[in-house]
Amino acid sequence: MERGKNSQQVISGPPPVKLVNRETKPEGTIVNVQGIQIGSSEVVVMAGPCAVENREQLLAIARAVQASGGKILRGGAFKPRTSPYSFTGLKEEGLKLLATVRQETGLPVVTEVMDTRQVEMVCRYADILQVGSRNMQNFALLEEVGQCNIPVLLKRGMSATIKEFLFAAEYILKHGNQQVILCERGIRTFETSTRYTLDLNAVPMLKKLSHLPVIVDPSHGTGHWWMVPWLAKAAVAVGADGLLVEVHYKPEEALSDGPQCLRPDKFDSMMQEINKVARAVGRKISIPKPIHELSNSTV
Amino acid sequence: MERGKNSQQVISGPPPVKLVNRETKPEGTIVNVQGIQIGSSEVVVMAGPCAVENREQLLAIARAVQASGGKILRGGAFKPRTSPYSFTGLKEEGLKLLATVRQETGLPVVTEVMDTRQVEMVCRYADILQVGSRNMQNFALLEEVGQCNIPVLLKRGMSATIKEFLFAAEYILKHGNQQVILCERGIRTFETSTRYTLDLNAVPMLKKLSHLPVIVDPSHGTGHWWMVPWLAKAAVAVGADGLLVEVHYKPEEALSDGPQCLRPDKFDSMMQEINKVARAVGRKISIPKPIHELSNSTV
Amino acid sequence: MERGKNSQQVISGPPPVKLVNRETKPEGTIVNVQGIQIGSSEVVVMAGPCAVENREQLLAIARAVQASGGKILRGGAFKPRTSPYSFTGLKEEGLKLLATVRQETGLPVVTEVMDTRQVEMVCRYADILQVGSRNMQNFALLEEVGQCNIPVLLKRGMSATIKEFLFAAEYILKHGNQQVILCERGIRTFETSTRYTLDLNAVPMLKKLSHLPVIVDPSHGTGHWWMVPWLAKAAVAVGADGLLVEVHYKPEEALSDGPQCLRPDKFDSMMQEINKVARAVGRKISIPKPIHELSNSTV
Amino acid sequence: MERGKNSQQVISGPPPVKLVNRETKPEGTIVNVQGIQIGSSEVVVMAGPCAVENREQLLAIARAVQASGGKILRGGAFKPRTSPYSFTGLKEEGLKLLATVRQETGLPVVTEVMDTRQVEMVCRYADILQVGSRNMQNFALLEEVGQCNIPVLLKRGMSATIKEFLFAAEYILKHGNQQVILCERGIRTFETSTRYTLDLNAVPMLKKLSHLPVIVDPSHGTGHWWMVPWLAKAAVAVGADGLLVEVHYKPEEALSDGPQCLRPDKFDSMMQEINKVARAVGRKISIPKPIHELSNSTV
Repeated sequence: MERGKNSQQVISGPPPVKLVNRETKPEGTIVNVQGIQIGSSEVVVMAGPCAVENREQLLAIARAVQASGGKILRGGAFKPRTSPYSFTGLKEEGLKLLATVRQETGLPVVTEVMDTRQVEMVCRYADILQVGSRNMQNFALLEEVGQCNIPVLLKRGMSATIKEFLFAAEYILKHGNQQVILCERGIRTFETSTRYTLDLNAVPMLKKLSHLPVIVDPSHGTGHWWMVPWLAKAAVAVGADGLLVEVHYKPEEALSDGPQCLRPDKFDSMMQEINKVARAVGRKISIPKPIHELSNSTV
Repeated sequence: MERGKNSQQVISGPPPVKLVNRETKPEGTIVNVQGIQIGSSEVVVMAGPCAVENREQLLAIARAVQASGGKILRGGAFKPRTSPYSFTGLKEEGLKLLATVRQETGLPVVTEVMDTRQVEMVCRYADILQVGSRNMQNFALLEEVGQCNIPVLLKRGMSATIKEFLFAAEYILKHGNQQVILCERGIRTFETSTRYTLDLNAVPMLKKLSHLPVIVDPSHGTGHWWMVPWLAKAAVAVGADGLLVEVHYKPEEALSDGPQCLRPDKFDSMMQEINKVARAVGRKISIPKPIHELSNSTV
Repeated sequence: MERGKNSQQVISGPPPVKLVNRETKPEGTIVNVQGIQIGSSEVVVMAGPCAVENREQLLAIARAVQASGGKILRGGAFKPRTSPYSFTGLKEEGLKLLATVRQETGLPVVTEVMDTRQVEMVCRYADILQVGSRNMQNFALLEEVGQCNIPVLLKRGMSATIKEFLFAAEYILKHGNQQVILCERGIRTFETSTRYTLDLNAVPMLKKLSHLPVIVDPSHGTGHWWMVPWLAKAAVAVGADGLLVEVHYKPEEALSDGPQCLRPDKFDSMMQEINKVARAVGRKISIPKPIHELSNSTV
Repeated sequence: MERGKNSQQVISGPPPVKLVNRETKPEGTIVNVQGIQIGSSEVVVMAGPCAVENREQLLAIARAVQASGGKILRGGAFKPRTSPYSFTGLKEEGLKLLATVRQETGLPVVTEVMDTRQVEMVCRYADILQVGSRNMQNFALLEEVGQCNIPVLLKRGMSATIKEFLFAAEYILKHGNQQVILCERGIRTFETSTRYTLDLNAVPMLKKLSHLPVIVDPSHGTGHWWMVPWLAKAAVAVGADGLLVEVHYKPEEALSDGPQCLRPDKFDSMMQEINKVARAVGRKISIPKPIHELSNSTV
């Protein structure tokens, strides 16, 4: 009857994860996206605009990303925004633009899905479904993408513990989808000079506890374009399997997140730099040299 | 071209909220739930089990809640749970039990909706739709409940700033539903001796910035049943328009959140105590005295 | 040899506190300051300017504080400031002013000590030594005040857990001084609309774990003068044994922390309000009525 | 008279730093410690036990550190400990051991000073004075080390913003000492799987805002020995000028912080790895190859 005795104890959580646990599956999972292997020795860079704005914008950025060694195109058609008065994306029109640009460039596409009712539609256009930070514990959505046949990029909630993050992934695996990529994107702390605090401790910790590949988003994690290359190098050094980076030709005109977007020339320099770090830690990035030299002269 | 100059600045946010802003509507909004006025001089207590488990449990708790002065019955039919292996609620069966008990007791019902596809169904059974902390920025869900004709209880995200919280409410009002109740339920901090840190600063700040009523959930906010009456008193003193409290006859057997549930006798004492505090700050709680005395002898 | 197995565990902390533990001493400690009992049924209010500025300022504020029921005068002679270019206090001259005003009003004085080398000097003038938030783990200072014969008001570090806070107090008791008052003054969180997040959960938790009296500082805890009365009422409702409040006649000219200082008339209203809450929770505040009426006409 | 209008504003802080500001001194400061240049192209590694325990322990670790390329010996003689019942260091005896081992190995020594009264004594033995995280805003101590003639290693407070960290350094420079090394050592967040959250965003941000060299402590920043090499690589990649690492022969017997100490063989592997990363980002670490090979066979 007396429950007071243990009342200063922290409430103990649920039992440990199963399906995402590395003890269950010691070898690392490799997520295959149209032949690109995430979780292999190659560091895979996904880049593109925060939001899909129009065909010209998207195609130009996609070509630049590809020329510099980016392997997957990111771009939001459905945009979660703090204010209902901000631009919230082109919706299905944006998805169609992504599909068009994929066809023209051959780059697979990762894009966000925000609502269970959109999952089927987004699946028709995307190569990877992104579940955003604010939806990491939208359990209905996790269950729905868990029933899809395409990979899921799951972003860590901005105040989710490592444990909660892994449980969110567990929801997806439990519903049948084993192709999950974890993404550290910055956590909320007291610090205000950066948008979030990119938590690179999370990378080795996630890889120790789980067999799933782990990528890092230095754009949201810092909120400042000039910091992105620095944190991208750190992410590669700390063992990330890939990066998610925002690129835009005219960041000051971007409809979303301009201050954290890299211009293509800066993105290209960043790719050169992280390639060196990747090699220093026994990994690599395949950069299409000739096209890259070409792109340098045209950008 | 040079963006470096301002780069140490924090990214400025969106323009201020409009519809929820007290400057737009200086007098406080009163949300009317079957004649119960939330935002009036009466402090409205909503109480019940974390999860609906069965008819007997729910009815017994509802009668106890009512006897002690609780005005609205809370109970989860859809339960967001960190682990996919935890009990996730009775779903529609739970909603039906809530409706039955409402009929028997006359208590209006508040219950959570987690998915846009469930909104219509939950509306058929509930008097107030609850949007949980983990869905505070599930914008698709906000838009959907914004189109409903029944009040919405919006819980603050566990790491949402006051500003983000108000923007989430703005989504609902912008879609047509003006009947929104804000609920502070504890934020995530470094402290580990409590489940969350109930942020009572939020109450006067929200009431200054917005005309919407504000209630407090001391059960989730602390995670310890013995702390609930203390923080409930503080919440009333700091100006809360209501409370959301978990009550269970056998907390140690509760399928969810047992350690933070009050037993009915403790809930009854709490109601007596907060009534005194309410009167000290110029408010009141109407406690049905005779029934209360009766319930004391039967519990 | 293999240490990897437990590596995901959180490093376990030191064994529990002893001397400050309520299990060691079940009855609450009452700290006696010139006949004023902190930890008794009376809620003791300590108030005054953030920094001692001059004799006129200090005396006028002291008389107003006293007239409204304040029992102890607060005022900083040594001020910890984030920037070395801010006003850092009048030093010993400030202590002398405090002593003078104490003599004129009879109000005991609480003032901060920041350096082990100042302890002896501050002891000559003060009735309570304050150890500030930034020095909560200045262990040399804790040991030094632990050897003094006058009470110590220990403020919680802005990111100290309850456990660390109690260990800091343990340092003082272990060195011989049993007269310690714990003070919750706001913790650092992600929220930016308030200066800190006043953690009222801490009050019942500290009182459960320890026998030491607990007071609350709503001025630093919120950073906004208009919030102070609200949080003061909540602090009394949640069980605080006292309050520490900043009062200034001209907050806009204060050399430190103006935006969080109450004017004497607002302080007086606050005292009336918290008195009602105190009585609602079985405590009291003795307000000198006639003097108060007099002060109302002169201020 | 009406101050309410701006009351939802965050209290604005003090004006920007001056002496530590990179705008005041665009070229980076190089701190010279017995010929070792911190802030140059070389990444300087400081390593050793958390606490000095005895001569044998210290000398053995120092030789291992040196053999692997460590340039400065760290070791605590005065240990700030959360609990007064933990080992708090050998005090002056520990300083003497550090001086002896310095003489035998030629390694300069960095050690913590916790109290203004100890500064003179510690100066007699140390090559760098360390001000710990818990004392980052012990302003009396900052002023005192600001008057010393030897370099100061200033650790970021566990909940200090970048701005507050720079202001703490400003105190030291303002009092005359220009030789300050900033050290990121992990901040306090909600995450519990690591001891702290090492904030690598801080490195480029500090280097942008200030001319002072910046080093990183991955031992405290993670709390797990196996994570240290990962975060050390990331720290070098993100631009750190040095590292502070805990090394112990028998971590399980260490009197302080064992779980985060590297064994010498792991430290040696780490040095090889970070050397590769350093070269990839245009920097270097001078590792005494022959001695290193020798040490491999003897350890």
